[in-house]
Amino acid sequence: MKEFLQKAKNSSRIISTLSSKKKTNILLQIADTLVKNQDTIIAENQKDMKEGIKENLPSALLDRLKLDKSRITDMAQSIREIASLKEPIGKVLEGWVIPSGQRIEKVTTPIGVIGIIYESRPNVTSDTAALCFKSGNVCVLKGGKEANRSNRAIASLLQQVLENNGLPKEIISLLPDNTREGVAKLIKMDELVDLIIPRGGEALIKFVSKNSTVPVIKHDKGLCHIFIDKSADIQNAVDISINAKCQRPGVCNAMETLLVHEDITKDILPKLKEEFDKQKTQLVGCEKTCNLIDIAKASKEDFYTEYLSNKLSIKVVKDIDEAISHVNEHSSGHSESILTQNYINGERFLNEVDSACVYINSSTRFTDGAQFGFGAEVGISTSKLHSRGPMGINDLTTYKFKIYGNGNIRE
Amino acid sequence: MKEFLQKAKNSSRIISTLSSKKKTNILLQIADTLVKNQDTIIAENQKDMKEGIKENLPSALLDRLKLDKSRITDMAQSIREIASLKEPIGKVLEGWVIPSGQRIEKVTTPIGVIGIIYESRPNVTSDTAALCFKSGNVCVLKGGKEANRSNRAIASLLQQVLENNGLPKEIISLLPDNTREGVAKLIKMDELVDLIIPRGGEALIKFVSKNSTVPVIKHDKGLCHIFIDKSADIQNAVDISINAKCQRPGVCNAMETLLVHEDITKDILPKLKEEFDKQKTQLVGCEKTCNLIDIAKASKEDFYTEYLSNKLSIKVVKDIDEAISHVNEHSSGHSESILTQNYINGERFLNEVDSACVYINSSTRFTDGAQFGFGAEVGISTSKLHSRGPMGINDLTTYKFKIYGNGNIRE
Repeated sequence: MKEFLQKAKNSSRIISTLSSKKKTNILLQIADTLVKNQDTIIAENQKDMKEGIKENLPSALLDRLKLDKSRITDMAQSIREIASLKEPIGKVLEGWVIPSGQRIEKVTTPIGVIGIIYESRPNVTSDTAALCFKSGNVCVLKGGKEANRSNRAIASLLQQVLENNGLPKEIISLLPDNTREGVAKLIKMDELVDLIIPRGGEALIKFVSKNSTVPVIKHDKGLCHIFIDKSADIQNAVDISINAKCQRPGVCNAMETLLVHEDITKDILPKLKEEFDKQKTQLVGCEKTCNLIDIAKASKEDFYTEYLSNKLSIKVVKDIDEAISHVNEHSSGHSESILTQNYINGERFLNEVDSACVYINSSTRFTDGAQFGFGAEVGISTSKLHSRGPMGINDLTTYKFKIYGNGNIRE
Repeated sequence: MKEFLQKAKNSSRIISTLSSKKKTNILLQIADTLVKNQDTIIAENQKDMKEGIKENLPSALLDRLKLDKSRITDMAQSIREIASLKEPIGKVLEGWVIPSGQRIEKVTTPIGVIGIIYESRPNVTSDTAALCFKSGNVCVLKGGKEANRSNRAIASLLQQVLENNGLPKEIISLLPDNTREGVAKLIKMDELVDLIIPRGGEALIKFVSKNSTVPVIKHDKGLCHIFIDKSADIQNAVDISINAKCQRPGVCNAMETLLVHEDITKDILPKLKEEFDKQKTQLVGCEKTCNLIDIAKASKEDFYTEYLSNKLSIKVVKDIDEAISHVNEHSSGHSESILTQNYINGERFLNEVDSACVYINSSTRFTDGAQFGFGAEVGISTSKLHSRGPMGINDLTTYKFKIYGNGNIRE
């Protein structure tokens, strides 16, 4: 492991100085290579699929695992889009001259070696590799075990392109030990790895956060809230609630808990129940909710649970203060929204709720790199440091200060 | 500990919404209070001093520990300067409208609860508290044990001012358990603490980095290099070398290793020896250096050592490539400088050396918040994420996305 990571680290100086033109060109070659070798990838993917079926993997997971020609075309297209992003390295963020006469420039640089741990979808392998490559970083990828053959096929094509261009293949590689033990070792290698990004289930995120000596940017769960204030437009509030919960219940920016101002419960709860019933959403609620509509009682635990399914917790709150307190106590810091016509309550919610994305009069489903206009996204950070919320390619950079002197000594 | 930190976390919502005017006003009150109560502080400091003398603390440490009227005036002045800094919270970093019509603002916010671990100087207590307060953060301070009484006296005055203004005293507090075990507990409290900043000796930094489950921004050692290229101006190179090593050898931006291009060793090494001898600098060198000037041989270990004293390692290198490789292998990522008239070598050094501050034709002694024009500094980060190099008050902020909608649902 150490030897492998030492090679990764050594190759980071090489990639950090590649010209933008060269990087773009290599990414376009990678896109072409994936399409040209799609049969090889699909053949390996079918072995993964076969084993997955044998092991009774859930059908949703099998669906995410599956590669066909159309999905490989999409993967290639995504790499071409990353290739066309504005060069993230060497950007002068600030520049000034200090009293002693030196000129200072604060300039973006690659982070170095980034370990990324993710689950089954093999397109994440090529996407992530392309984002790291474009931003001058070396990546060490650890995908899901069930996608092992697919990921190896993809990575080996990427490495071929690197070698054809005279670059070390260690610039993009899969973690050789593709197990939990491999991850446990990787996250202790702070001398050689600069950043770990875990994307995946709660257990993985917790394990990495608790044990890593390398800095971590978490892509943790999204326990997202919507608060319907008493001045909200009722019909719009129902529409947004349905959209936030039901449009795609399995994603991190879907709503998990709905808070309703007590003054409008009689007007809105029956309507919500009617619409959610049409969507077959399973509703659970606090006592006050259950007194008004016929749904099951929510446990304390429910309000801490990211269902990732078509289930919703509902709670009645007495005012904006209780709403904000409930959110800050239960949220995972991902995305929250207030629906209101009231200026002061809107401002307070946006300012006092401590989450990456805070909305007014909008579904939470917009928390997404593509929706935000970042192009391809690395994921959605629930960490507060370095990068928070949707992570674009610019979040894969750090900076250095370049100081241009003229023979200066400090008095 | 948990209960104490829970209070700290709860008070973070209160401070995060204070107006700039109110924060500034409270900081000015704090400055006045310190001066008005200087006798109390000095009395407590004298007890620390007495115990320090009894325990035979080194005189340099005792000097840093000592408070008198003039030092307390300086502490108050420093707080007034922090009070006058531009408000760091609520700054709109970017803003745009997305295709679905919502307006997005990326806005600076406080980080939350920050634990800061530092060594003896009691002025760090008031400085750090003021920086955290101005940036809307709650701070938990853990100063050196030898300054315990001084720190308690200062912190209790700060807390008085908070309470006089109707604020919870937990906004600024000292870690109740002021021991290594206390630190060990603090750095595991990732549910309640958002950031740990360790400033101090190597052992402390290592302990915190290896064990913290809270994100860490290290203020690690400065193993700084200067490379004298063959085209450097000889007299200027000697002046800069003396400045970088001898002006204040005990600080982190002082030079520890001098690299010299092999083509100019005969011209420059004797001159360097002559000038360093005048400064009583202890020199050790590689074999090639020792062949030319009469100094002791450097061990392999020497080139990995931050002396923090008037001692210097010298190594002859054959070209810019060897210089860059040596720096990237041995440096702590703090500050490095190339002295050269050659454009290409200067560019390569600035681009390829992976350190927070990279200089051309300048002493490394300028790596400092005040020199950079940041006002008061939190310290110098040797981490790569979130904040790198001199940390000003803006580095004590994170950001959130505020999304202003108009009833939007995702299609």
